[in-house]
Amino acid sequence: MSASVAVAGASGYAGGEVLRLLLGHPGVEIGAVTAGSNAGERLGSLQPHLLPLADRVLADTTAETLAGHDVVFLGLPHGQSASIARALGDDVVVVDCGADFRLTDPGEWQAFYGGEHAGSWPYGLPELPGQRELLRGARRIAVPGCYPTVSTLAVVPALAAGLVEPDVTVVAASGTSGAGKAAKTHLLGSEVMGNASAYGVGGSHRHTPEIVQNLSGLTGTPVRVGFTPLLVPMSRGILATVQAPLLTGVTAEQVRDAYVSAYADEPFVHVLPEDQWPQTQSVLGSNAVQVQVAVDERVRRLVAVAVVDNLAKGTAGAAVQCMNLALGLDEATGLSTIGLAP
Amino acid sequence: MSASVAVAGASGYAGGEVLRLLLGHPGVEIGAVTAGSNAGERLGSLQPHLLPLADRVLADTTAETLAGHDVVFLGLPHGQSASIARALGDDVVVVDCGADFRLTDPGEWQAFYGGEHAGSWPYGLPELPGQRELLRGARRIAVPGCYPTVSTLAVVPALAAGLVEPDVTVVAASGTSGAGKAAKTHLLGSEVMGNASAYGVGGSHRHTPEIVQNLSGLTGTPVRVGFTPLLVPMSRGILATVQAPLLTGVTAEQVRDAYVSAYADEPFVHVLPEDQWPQTQSVLGSNAVQVQVAVDERVRRLVAVAVVDNLAKGTAGAAVQCMNLALGLDEATGLSTIGLAP
Amino acid sequence: MSASVAVAGASGYAGGEVLRLLLGHPGVEIGAVTAGSNAGERLGSLQPHLLPLADRVLADTTAETLAGHDVVFLGLPHGQSASIARALGDDVVVVDCGADFRLTDPGEWQAFYGGEHAGSWPYGLPELPGQRELLRGARRIAVPGCYPTVSTLAVVPALAAGLVEPDVTVVAASGTSGAGKAAKTHLLGSEVMGNASAYGVGGSHRHTPEIVQNLSGLTGTPVRVGFTPLLVPMSRGILATVQAPLLTGVTAEQVRDAYVSAYADEPFVHVLPEDQWPQTQSVLGSNAVQVQVAVDERVRRLVAVAVVDNLAKGTAGAAVQCMNLALGLDEATGLSTIGLAP
Amino acid sequence: MSASVAVAGASGYAGGEVLRLLLGHPGVEIGAVTAGSNAGERLGSLQPHLLPLADRVLADTTAETLAGHDVVFLGLPHGQSASIARALGDDVVVVDCGADFRLTDPGEWQAFYGGEHAGSWPYGLPELPGQRELLRGARRIAVPGCYPTVSTLAVVPALAAGLVEPDVTVVAASGTSGAGKAAKTHLLGSEVMGNASAYGVGGSHRHTPEIVQNLSGLTGTPVRVGFTPLLVPMSRGILATVQAPLLTGVTAEQVRDAYVSAYADEPFVHVLPEDQWPQTQSVLGSNAVQVQVAVDERVRRLVAVAVVDNLAKGTAGAAVQCMNLALGLDEATGLSTIGLAP
Repeated sequence: MSASVAVAGASGYAGGEVLRLLLGHPGVEIGAVTAGSNAGERLGSLQPHLLPLADRVLADTTAETLAGHDVVFLGLPHGQSASIARALGDDVVVVDCGADFRLTDPGEWQAFYGGEHAGSWPYGLPELPGQRELLRGARRIAVPGCYPTVSTLAVVPALAAGLVEPDVTVVAASGTSGAGKAAKTHLLGSEVMGNASAYGVGGSHRHTPEIVQNLSGLTGTPVRVGFTPLLVPMSRGILATVQAPLLTGVTAEQVRDAYVSAYADEPFVHVLPEDQWPQTQSVLGSNAVQVQVAVDERVRRLVAVAVVDNLAKGTAGAAVQCMNLALGLDEATGLSTIGLAP
Repeated sequence: MSASVAVAGASGYAGGEVLRLLLGHPGVEIGAVTAGSNAGERLGSLQPHLLPLADRVLADTTAETLAGHDVVFLGLPHGQSASIARALGDDVVVVDCGADFRLTDPGEWQAFYGGEHAGSWPYGLPELPGQRELLRGARRIAVPGCYPTVSTLAVVPALAAGLVEPDVTVVAASGTSGAGKAAKTHLLGSEVMGNASAYGVGGSHRHTPEIVQNLSGLTGTPVRVGFTPLLVPMSRGILATVQAPLLTGVTAEQVRDAYVSAYADEPFVHVLPEDQWPQTQSVLGSNAVQVQVAVDERVRRLVAVAVVDNLAKGTAGAAVQCMNLALGLDEATGLSTIGLAP
Repeated sequence: MSASVAVAGASGYAGGEVLRLLLGHPGVEIGAVTAGSNAGERLGSLQPHLLPLADRVLADTTAETLAGHDVVFLGLPHGQSASIARALGDDVVVVDCGADFRLTDPGEWQAFYGGEHAGSWPYGLPELPGQRELLRGARRIAVPGCYPTVSTLAVVPALAAGLVEPDVTVVAASGTSGAGKAAKTHLLGSEVMGNASAYGVGGSHRHTPEIVQNLSGLTGTPVRVGFTPLLVPMSRGILATVQAPLLTGVTAEQVRDAYVSAYADEPFVHVLPEDQWPQTQSVLGSNAVQVQVAVDERVRRLVAVAVVDNLAKGTAGAAVQCMNLALGLDEATGLSTIGLAP
Repeated sequence: MSASVAVAGASGYAGGEVLRLLLGHPGVEIGAVTAGSNAGERLGSLQPHLLPLADRVLADTTAETLAGHDVVFLGLPHGQSASIARALGDDVVVVDCGADFRLTDPGEWQAFYGGEHAGSWPYGLPELPGQRELLRGARRIAVPGCYPTVSTLAVVPALAAGLVEPDVTVVAASGTSGAGKAAKTHLLGSEVMGNASAYGVGGSHRHTPEIVQNLSGLTGTPVRVGFTPLLVPMSRGILATVQAPLLTGVTAEQVRDAYVSAYADEPFVHVLPEDQWPQTQSVLGSNAVQVQVAVDERVRRLVAVAVVDNLAKGTAGAAVQCMNLALGLDEATGLSTIGLAP
């Protein structure tokens, strides 16, 4: 029997990607598709790549239009998820693609987002040790941010195995779709093509405390995280470089073994063979994370590199993966590890 | 029961795309994957996006390695398909993604390709009136060129309905993957990014006679075709503009009706609602063709625009679609009309 | 002695490009730089590539702030130039980069732009036969649209020499900067990268009547013009393909001779050697137009291809070129035929 | 009186960019332009953007063809410069855009390049404290690598002022032109568009020892340098992020003051106003370096970001700047701080 699913924010990039994945999912039936200012329009004019849904008309995003489904995906600006979630029954699986319920620390929420902290929900990164069990059968799930997903997975094996100091430097290059579909001058094609830029430098990006939370939760001690995001000229994809000082005596072999064994049973995280480095094109449209790791002996640092499709595994793919866990389905249902390249 | 399938030329773009689609096809089992100079390498190092096949090692492309399969896809440089096909049994479905068997006229072959004409096979464009029946159960199929596919489908309804003169002007903008994966200076990223260029101007492109053949076959009279290809800075996708003089008295409404009715039952060709124009992003990775048509009253010309993913419906998607017809499967098996956007 | 120059609309793409060129012009001094909603901001934050002007603060665009200069460049939304020009003295050189004064026919203005027709000024395309003389010493100049510049120059030699029928088909691929710097969803980087699209199909683009006007003025008879613009993933550059039926008996040699002789003395229009096709990268940032022409014997059509930087020769370069003529300077002062590649 | 200048390697990207800049230089006359395998071809077919030189025919790169000039620029594969330089007179200014004479330590040369160490020449980074004086009147100059230029300049003020530990982490995103014009599969447009990748991870990139040399020379103590280069989808430009631990008590204000004062008198290095972050588009085609710096208080690290055009200030611009110093001209002659944007 199919689960009925509603998608709020269906005119945006996250909502569109959720729909794209649900169209290939054998266990769901797509119910309400809703939007804010785009309500009343044909989905075909806003998401022309979703041909089978072209004639759907977007409803208003309200608790009423979203009611009566087994699963509701929320792709809304932050601050809007809590009231809608409250109005939906406790038995409804609510998967929030936004930031509202990711952070457990109200102070961090206040510092980076401002406004009242809505609380926290089970964090939708099944690959984080111990996390998968919390997601099975869950009825509220906070989908991780795209940068935290790829940055966390790039360094978890090293931290979990105690091979590096809890002092992590992340520099990550992202495509523009992570910035959303709202029209802004600095995101115009003319501005971003042929152009690389830095932003949120110095630790001010909102994904910083989320990475800290993931890594500190893993190690049980505060992990220092410096995070620098870059914008590069592509629509999709994030490549994250993650560095940390190696503890004395740790060898490249130990590092490699830690990565290989940490992800040996993960369906979506793949450690590449030695000397093959990740590229974002390989994971476009897929739920895969490709990871590689090296040791820089001159500076005794671990350098891990991981790639993810920010809209797929970085957002909507994780959302569907978590829905699968919540509904008791095979975790990989409707998801793929095959990218669209070249 | 699954059909066993071999793919020759698996390290190239066409072969890689065939494999990508076959990985999602419920009715096949992937057998031999072969290559020329890349034989002996891991597929994972050449096609890192095909994660489930990463550990496959490429065999040499020979009749021997390809023997014993129900279906063989050939993605080879032109001139190489005939000898391999001869060595395979007559009961094997051979789907040639190359040009060798597309043209029926030896003179045209000679003029545009040179060398001996290998002959012609059933032409793999099921949407061409009458063509689908020739492909059901076929054992040899010539997959159309990417430009001919999109250009032909853009104008078939108007020619078939007798609304325009047999005088067609095609200008089509293509991504770079149509030029293949062989390393050439003018195809370097530094050369193609931020750059649009024309090539094969004046009717010299090898796809010209193929478009002529399609359209003249349709109308039963010689159709004049002027074809100008452009290279634009993207990996995948072709957008074709096709123009022809309207016959006296023909109205925009007649034109629209002709397009809508011509493609009403086609699973992969979609005429967009009025005022919505095709964009290549909408069909990336999909087997869909999106079409729109307008009448320019000032010059009394029909202007049709169609988009296709050159590697998918433009090559590998058509190949799989034809295989489905050849094997008696549902024509859409393993194929999608959902694009990867943004 | 330097001419004092003001630039209105300095925060936009046209205004920014005028400033870029003026910074390298030995005969001018940059006076007021003005803007609409961006007035009060540092130029450095809006046009960070214009480092020598980074600390300039944008004034309001008013007749007062623009008064007292020898030359005023207007880069304003259409409809705003007339009132400002009226308030400036008749001896001031006013160069309008917008559309307001390009069309001579009020009916065409009405049909394509709507609102009252402001009139027409000398048309700033010195390469149009007879036009250069009208620009020497002019005090009001209408800079051509980017598409009309490149499309007109691609076909002028053939029409002027009477080699083709007055029936012209233009398909032109443009970068996104031609659409301006206003934030619009369909121009976001995520929407335009990896994407080619058609727009204004069927003769509805506003540059259509301008091309008609140019070509009909040249030949003295109405020229039919079908114009189809494409948007392709690059910031700058237009590549135009222009086709017309050859008159009986016209040879490829005659065509080539007509092009070579037509542009032999033009400083900025260059006919490429045979078999070398234009690419937009070659003219980025330059005032050059590169042209090539072929004859498609199968359909007896001329196919010309020309490239231009839409912001440079397509807008701001033409503006400076015309200012030079107006001021009696060498026409090429401050302009270059050297592109930025790769 | 003009200096006569020859350019070896004129068909490549570095050589082409040297020629582009020399065409705008008032104090030089371009003499021999030479190439290896492209000798005998028209420059116009290889570098179509250099229109004024289109009819030049490339000579062979030999000591004979390069003899008799005041200045010779070498843009050759590494290992080829020494023998040519030896054959030119000691009074000729030889500016090597390649790597042969950059490293002073034969062991580092051996480790990263292999083969015999050719020696070292004055290092062409005038902005390095004390370095400008060594370049005035020099007759042999080694132009820095592109990554070392931007990485070094991003951190020099902090190290020179003693604000950070000698422990530097560089992650830099580069366009593809830095990889040169030789045809390689992984540099094809289809491979690099829509794709970000890492390479040379773990300290193996050849520019690593050059950064170490620069920074250690500056501080007089060994500086640890971890360097990770990324390839992103654009032709030109490098954005470097450089991080280092702040010493105890150092404030953001001290950091900012150090940067502002270090570069106050530099013609080409500009520290941006607070909260404005560098983007590569701003420096395309220019000799400018734009720099910004922040303090990440949570991890007590300095994060500097700098951008450069890898072909201009990163290679050919630096070469011309050094030639100016060598010839006793104004250092900025023929160079610009104005970028080509958008």
